[in-house]
Amino acid sequence: MATPIEFWFDFSSPFGYLASTRIEALAAKYGRSTIWRPFLLGAVYKINGVVPTPNVPLKGDYARIDILRTGRFYGIPIAVPSNFPIGSVTAARAFYWADAQDPGKAKQLASALYKAYFVDDVDIANAENVVKVAVQSGFDAAAVAAGLGDAAVKERTKQEVENAIAKGVFGSPYVIVDGEPFWGMDRLDQAEKWLAGGPF
Amino acid sequence: MATPIEFWFDFSSPFGYLASTRIEALAAKYGRSTIWRPFLLGAVYKINGVVPTPNVPLKGDYARIDILRTGRFYGIPIAVPSNFPIGSVTAARAFYWADAQDPGKAKQLASALYKAYFVDDVDIANAENVVKVAVQSGFDAAAVAAGLGDAAVKERTKQEVENAIAKGVFGSPYVIVDGEPFWGMDRLDQAEKWLAGGPF
Repeated sequence: MATPIEFWFDFSSPFGYLASTRIEALAAKYGRSTIWRPFLLGAVYKINGVVPTPNVPLKGDYARIDILRTGRFYGIPIAVPSNFPIGSVTAARAFYWADAQDPGKAKQLASALYKAYFVDDVDIANAENVVKVAVQSGFDAAAVAAGLGDAAVKERTKQEVENAIAKGVFGSPYVIVDGEPFWGMDRLDQAEKWLAGGPF
Repeated sequence: MATPIEFWFDFSSPFGYLASTRIEALAAKYGRSTIWRPFLLGAVYKINGVVPTPNVPLKGDYARIDILRTGRFYGIPIAVPSNFPIGSVTAARAFYWADAQDPGKAKQLASALYKAYFVDDVDIANAENVVKVAVQSGFDAAAVAAGLGDAAVKERTKQEVENAIAKGVFGSPYVIVDGEPFWGMDRLDQAEKWLAGGPF
């Protein structure tokens, strides 16, 4: 039985968004299921003493060029949001609230949140906006709002960030196939080679 | 008249080495010439407050896996050197000494230095080893040794590092096509799309 592909991502990560639009088709092509796991890059960066890319002097300027060009290269719509980067804990909590009910619907919510942020310039650091996107994805407004404040949801989110750190997840997207890590949108080609032919 | 492709790299950079094995064929395919420009990542990192990747806790462990797997993915021999990363100023000076005489021979020397370091585990931070590699590439031992200590060579090397910083080169490899920057071995595919069809 083939193991599921683990897809770790931060809702503030442009390459996480780009990869999210391709991971399901990639998995399906090789008969794999997926497990989506948002985490918080800020928590990982704190441990590693890393400065977020958009805030690194030369690298940050390049990142904006690279994000847009990579979208065009793959034919995936993307814009740099007005408020970027953001803390993504609210979006992550919405995901884990939905995930406890239905992992499939949680993936749809994640895709909708990513599209809202990276295509429609909706600030998903804002809880009201997260609720609006969830409603558009078929969830009940009052239920989502309550979920965002739920202690179990907060604890689950915290736990998954700790799981990410324990697994060595240090960037977004981070894909794990049969225990093998692939960091970055630009390693999906290597992940595909692994899926197609096994270890290389 | 098509402009030359600028290829910026650090001799301690594994992805710089991997890209160096492909840049000439890529350029030739699209009727372009190349200009090779080693620089010193350490100087750039100092400005940007960046920690070298091998020294970042989780990222450094992954980097070793990724370097070897990327070599296998492209069919390019590579090993993680015993002494890694290194300061590469001596190798860079050898290059600029050779470049002042013959840019073509300097590229051959750069390729030989990269192969010595990333395939044969020769520590090219060591000046004696740099001279040996240069001799194997057809240069005169005494002339190279004198070149490494030459004030004009040191000044040229320093100047090219400043040029790199002025151009916004913050990582290795860094390829510039018609003014457009492409950072990383994994952006050669986008550079190729640009070379084939122009801006996108």
